[in-house]
Amino acid sequence: MLLINIFEIIGTIAFAISGALVGIEKKLDIFGVTFLAITTAIGGGVFRDIIVGRTPPTAFNNPIYCVISIISAILTYLFYKKIHKFKNIILISDAIGLGIFTAVGANVAFFCSMNKPFIVICTGLVTGIGGGMLRDVFVKDIPFVFKKEIYAVASILGAISMYFLYDYLSNILSMYACFFVTFIIRILSIKYNLNLPVLDDKNIGFKSDEI
Amino acid sequence: MLLINIFEIIGTIAFAISGALVGIEKKLDIFGVTFLAITTAIGGGVFRDIIVGRTPPTAFNNPIYCVISIISAILTYLFYKKIHKFKNIILISDAIGLGIFTAVGANVAFFCSMNKPFIVICTGLVTGIGGGMLRDVFVKDIPFVFKKEIYAVASILGAISMYFLYDYLSNILSMYACFFVTFIIRILSIKYNLNLPVLDDKNIGFKSDEI
Amino acid sequence: MLLINIFEIIGTIAFAISGALVGIEKKLDIFGVTFLAITTAIGGGVFRDIIVGRTPPTAFNNPIYCVISIISAILTYLFYKKIHKFKNIILISDAIGLGIFTAVGANVAFFCSMNKPFIVICTGLVTGIGGGMLRDVFVKDIPFVFKKEIYAVASILGAISMYFLYDYLSNILSMYACFFVTFIIRILSIKYNLNLPVLDDKNIGFKSDEI
Repeated sequence: MLLINIFEIIGTIAFAISGALVGIEKKLDIFGVTFLAITTAIGGGVFRDIIVGRTPPTAFNNPIYCVISIISAILTYLFYKKIHKFKNIILISDAIGLGIFTAVGANVAFFCSMNKPFIVICTGLVTGIGGGMLRDVFVKDIPFVFKKEIYAVASILGAISMYFLYDYLSNILSMYACFFVTFIIRILSIKYNLNLPVLDDKNIGFKSDEI
Repeated sequence: MLLINIFEIIGTIAFAISGALVGIEKKLDIFGVTFLAITTAIGGGVFRDIIVGRTPPTAFNNPIYCVISIISAILTYLFYKKIHKFKNIILISDAIGLGIFTAVGANVAFFCSMNKPFIVICTGLVTGIGGGMLRDVFVKDIPFVFKKEIYAVASILGAISMYFLYDYLSNILSMYACFFVTFIIRILSIKYNLNLPVLDDKNIGFKSDEI
Repeated sequence: MLLINIFEIIGTIAFAISGALVGIEKKLDIFGVTFLAITTAIGGGVFRDIIVGRTPPTAFNNPIYCVISIISAILTYLFYKKIHKFKNIILISDAIGLGIFTAVGANVAFFCSMNKPFIVICTGLVTGIGGGMLRDVFVKDIPFVFKKEIYAVASILGAISMYFLYDYLSNILSMYACFFVTFIIRILSIKYNLNLPVLDDKNIGFKSDEI
């Protein structure tokens, strides 16, 4: 179980840093920066727990991830000028976070005996991308998962592989499989700059609010 | 029960198309377009289920509405240039969706024995307009129900009529009554371009953030 | 208990007015203005109840706060031009609202036997600032608690003092203590225009979305 916990901590730090960076750029005060870091790191898990009815959400019962987020946010705030040196480390850590949060989230569905494929995908995906979406909504950006590279798709494919492997592997092993599938797809999409298609020809003379 | 199910499917398709159209205009990628379609179609019901404590939400237990949304989104994406020909059909389908979602939502309150008038209105309204509000928040629009025509009001009046008729009619009949009240008011407000009043004189020399 | 109830009503009115004012400025129609007033006044409590698993949320079970919000919104709409005369009263009422909502929210954690310090802070904070955050998200503002003065910090310090005093004082007395700590800090931060630090030097040649 140790390695999963280490991955979770790495992911929490990476997600919190991404939240703090966005907050600093949007000129939030130190509370806003910290709050956004926490939201990014634990938001997906909180929403997942609300969906499956686990109240209060784990992140509120066990403040460790919140404390990690606060420390990450303050360090990001203090060393903001130097953080671009760690650009690649942060990118890789974020991919680790996406992978491990998807695995942990999908596992919650099995844990709650909601082992239908659709719920496994939903809990995995919500845990993986929910925090980042909340961060973007708070600072008035369109959630970047709607626009940028193969992010959510990596999470969905990871959760699907976990669902199919769960019958053949142990709980922990299927979580690792989910983690690696998500992580590898995400890293490949960054390396080769893969993106999903966007419809660009729009000269059709009407807008949705005319409908 | 059959007709209600048909209405639900029509409404899901209309809501999903509206989400997909907004996503295409906002230049989201194909995942974003599909996600926004799903959000618009099932978001209201998910939020309603969270409010009344039905976890996991119905839409996650039964993927049929999600599958319908995905298919609607992909077809909208593929045939985007031709969709304005169906403008009126989409408008009417959206009104059918508003009506049926309100009826289904209000019925959940009775089903959960929360048959106080206020909860019936809340569950009906949240189910009817929640998905559209989420869609607008995600793409950085002010929810159009705050601005455009008589939309939420139709849903509220439908839910109120369901509450009062529930004692006299069968479950199904009161749902139909709710559906028709909502649908008729919505269609009339489109046909006669009825809107709620907006305060427009603002020359009073202060703004709320000065308060 | 009476005084707490009076504070709650004052706070509800102040929060509803702030929501209605924002709605009027953003040119929402009368439904949007009212909906935003309700959201601001009850949103925090609804979110708190979802987090601790009290469904349906209190505000939906007992429509009194919703009715107060609707009346406040309509009066704000009608007397919008005269409301700046009450600027100071609204500011003080808002601070009363922040204090009492924090106290009521933190008390819910004790009531549900979730008396860990972190959950007490979370429920207090969410109840105090959640409605205002929802309001800002709906109208496309970055939540003002991320930017303006010592608002959330007052709520956090109030909840912390309640947690430590709960063992020594009666339930009601510790709520009053929480209320006064929050209220005094908030009023002092307005009077002396105290703000949290914002990082302003950003010439470092990269943006978070490049990371």
